[in-house]
Amino acid sequence: MPAKDITASMLVIGDEILSGRTRDKNIGVLADFCGELGIDLKEVRIIGDELSEIVAALNALREKYRYVFTSGGIGPTHDDITADAVAAAFGVELEISEAAKQAMMDRFPGYEMTPARLRMARIPQGGDLIENSVSAAPGIHIGNVYVMAGVPSVFEAMLAAIAPTLETGKRVLSTSIDCFVGEGRLGDPLGALQAEFPDVKIGSYPQFGGGRRFLTQVVLRSADQSRLNAATDAVQALVERLHTEHQAEIANHPKT
Amino acid sequence: MPAKDITASMLVIGDEILSGRTRDKNIGVLADFCGELGIDLKEVRIIGDELSEIVAALNALREKYRYVFTSGGIGPTHDDITADAVAAAFGVELEISEAAKQAMMDRFPGYEMTPARLRMARIPQGGDLIENSVSAAPGIHIGNVYVMAGVPSVFEAMLAAIAPTLETGKRVLSTSIDCFVGEGRLGDPLGALQAEFPDVKIGSYPQFGGGRRFLTQVVLRSADQSRLNAATDAVQALVERLHTEHQAEIANHPKT
Repeated sequence: MPAKDITASMLVIGDEILSGRTRDKNIGVLADFCGELGIDLKEVRIIGDELSEIVAALNALREKYRYVFTSGGIGPTHDDITADAVAAAFGVELEISEAAKQAMMDRFPGYEMTPARLRMARIPQGGDLIENSVSAAPGIHIGNVYVMAGVPSVFEAMLAAIAPTLETGKRVLSTSIDCFVGEGRLGDPLGALQAEFPDVKIGSYPQFGGGRRFLTQVVLRSADQSRLNAATDAVQALVERLHTEHQAEIANHPKT
Repeated sequence: MPAKDITASMLVIGDEILSGRTRDKNIGVLADFCGELGIDLKEVRIIGDELSEIVAALNALREKYRYVFTSGGIGPTHDDITADAVAAAFGVELEISEAAKQAMMDRFPGYEMTPARLRMARIPQGGDLIENSVSAAPGIHIGNVYVMAGVPSVFEAMLAAIAPTLETGKRVLSTSIDCFVGEGRLGDPLGALQAEFPDVKIGSYPQFGGGRRFLTQVVLRSADQSRLNAATDAVQALVERLHTEHQAEIANHPKT
């Protein structure tokens, strides 16, 4: 597989995900977003609202990957400490952004700029704002880090705002084939095909439950259309052979 | 808050989560599981099917936390490499477990032990089996690491199997209060209450969308019932005061 060179990671910040109170919805959205843009999402981390942990994770991820996308911890309350962590990770001060204040006041005329609300206008030195079309309080872009909200509608709006600014890679194409014999039978010949097509990533995903029938979904992924087609044809032929064998076995051993 | 000393982390292994093909369901299930047992889930990582990445993450997490729970990558196909990674992380060899083979053959009489299926009986030296009541192929327990399946029904069955063997902590109690004014107004006095109750963790979660009304959910968490009650009473009084002020403002500025 030709190396995709635009890598990314995600840092989900919030006690509520780890405590089980809230089910995360943003990881899957970011995974789809990256796929559309040909960005290779390599790692996601979820951590709680602890400053030192956020700083350590930010520094590990921004060093390792082209992009770091964060969600959570940018609201007005005491437990919203992501801006503080980003400033600490980059070794810069937080400043009140007049543009951020203005964006909030434009949206909500008569808005009283309480100290809590002012927290949402704090931007690390050298950072830019990410537009928030939902609720005005902006996200933050600094270096290769994009700091976005945890509320799903706002997170999505912020992704839409940054999409045109991101470097994109070659989009990975994929095909999918359903196989009605189990992985235990499919595994060996499928492994041989993977060895034959090292440039196409072949994944195998069993599904249990529902009816009695086995279902294994084989997913092939590559940025190269012709190689993807060749591997897909090979897997398709294998699956048809296994289905035929399986039918013959059933015919030879009818239930009595 | 009295320090809870039973910490845990989760490692989700699988390209399909990062590519967006599959939405993870196991993180929320593990979060609830840990909450029930008083285990403090501190971090989750999601990484792809790459041996060196899995080894590095396993070693980082098993050093830092009391428990590491993994999901994914223990099936019979070539992309199932979690057992290999665990063996490499612990510096031991993989061995075919006769007990694992037997468990699979007992479940599926006449089962042909193909090389693919045999992959699922490979256990790192020094490891124990985790029972799989759904589909027989076992998980692995070695050191402080619990290696489980990615298929949600099997993951849950394996959690049920290990639950009685885990060290448990003091269960964290929580209360929740709905506040119908925004975080911008709630933030400052709520921050003051957090300072007053440093032993109770106070989180604030805004919800957008739906009606025009603001809704902020305040969640309080502590292992100490009496402190939790005192902090909850204080937040309740604050929220009632804000509601009253809000009503008065509406009365004084009726819509024309």
